[in-house]
Amino acid sequence: MEFTERQARIVEIVKNSSPITGEQIAAKLDLTRATLRPDLTILTMAGVLEARPRVGYFYKEKKKTSPYMDRLRQLRVGDFKSLPISIRENISIYDAIVTMFTQNVGSLTVVGEGQTLRGMVSRKDLLKSTLGKTDLQQVPVSIIMTRMPNIIMTTADEPVLEAARKLTLHQIDTLPVVEAFIDEKGEERYEVIGRFTKTNVTKLFVQIGSLGAQS
Amino acid sequence: MEFTERQARIVEIVKNSSPITGEQIAAKLDLTRATLRPDLTILTMAGVLEARPRVGYFYKEKKKTSPYMDRLRQLRVGDFKSLPISIRENISIYDAIVTMFTQNVGSLTVVGEGQTLRGMVSRKDLLKSTLGKTDLQQVPVSIIMTRMPNIIMTTADEPVLEAARKLTLHQIDTLPVVEAFIDEKGEERYEVIGRFTKTNVTKLFVQIGSLGAQS
Repeated sequence: MEFTERQARIVEIVKNSSPITGEQIAAKLDLTRATLRPDLTILTMAGVLEARPRVGYFYKEKKKTSPYMDRLRQLRVGDFKSLPISIRENISIYDAIVTMFTQNVGSLTVVGEGQTLRGMVSRKDLLKSTLGKTDLQQVPVSIIMTRMPNIIMTTADEPVLEAARKLTLHQIDTLPVVEAFIDEKGEERYEVIGRFTKTNVTKLFVQIGSLGAQS
Repeated sequence: MEFTERQARIVEIVKNSSPITGEQIAAKLDLTRATLRPDLTILTMAGVLEARPRVGYFYKEKKKTSPYMDRLRQLRVGDFKSLPISIRENISIYDAIVTMFTQNVGSLTVVGEGQTLRGMVSRKDLLKSTLGKTDLQQVPVSIIMTRMPNIIMTTADEPVLEAARKLTLHQIDTLPVVEAFIDEKGEERYEVIGRFTKTNVTKLFVQIGSLGAQS
């Protein structure tokens, strides 16, 4: 279980003096109740704390695994990924930008024979290249792309939650979804089979929430 | 409650012939069980269907509002937003791009006096402007920014779920978080107090999921 520093302090306080109200926790931390609200909501939602109306918060000693959480962790990247949009590494930066607009995506995978992953280019990479004196029409995209082994990847089997964590941790918008294979020289290669983005996560979040709404 | 077309068909099938297994539903739809997995998981998670091991899926006639879902809908933009990064409309496109890199953000709010919202520029807008013959150092950002009334906004009070839906619906990465006020001419204006992005949604998704993991 991963807490932020503040969440860890809240849990400690509730452990040591439950039941305790939100106001009392806030006072101990020198914060307002409003500031604590999201942390208390998330800790309760996750089943770490229990909130009893007009009594206060309790620490849940024997936490049951929430079936909701279990199901959330069963979701796999392969079921929510988008199609990859790929280019070759010898095309110009200018043509890469044009491809991004015609395909309406925020990143491109750069591939060799057999859709083998060679690089990634993001909107950010392309935008940065326009700041210098680079001739966008002449310089190939291979000059500015992120290369192996610096590409953060995911697989169809990976839990959506893990892939989402990679996106936030590495501050990137897209993970290529790959399948590993061994080439004729015995080296590990990756075939690109999709892309997984913050947009996929946001859509999933909305879908889960919307379906829950009682109409 | 919002279903995708396929989810609506699944719900119809389960309504008419429950209990029914995943394989049987798949057969009726001419799809594989694997293809249906994410839909069945989400429908179960949302409390629309009930899955009983070795029996099959049931339609939940009397749906209880899930406390988990209730809490999810209580989360407000104001508790999860980021700080806004703002510029003036007379600065050059080039300087806007530089600001985006020095501040490490994917969008900028363009403001007038008193942080009044005048426009938005995204990485996509800036990248598009580099494709033409525009002199990036000379042309002000006001020429390419999205203007009122075309800016999609959110407020601190809005549920995170609604704001996330706006992001997916309008295919944008950032919503300015605003507070409306009436200026001295009696016109409605918006003060920028934050930004809410797909990154905020992804972080929240990860946080909810991570806290649920039993250690």
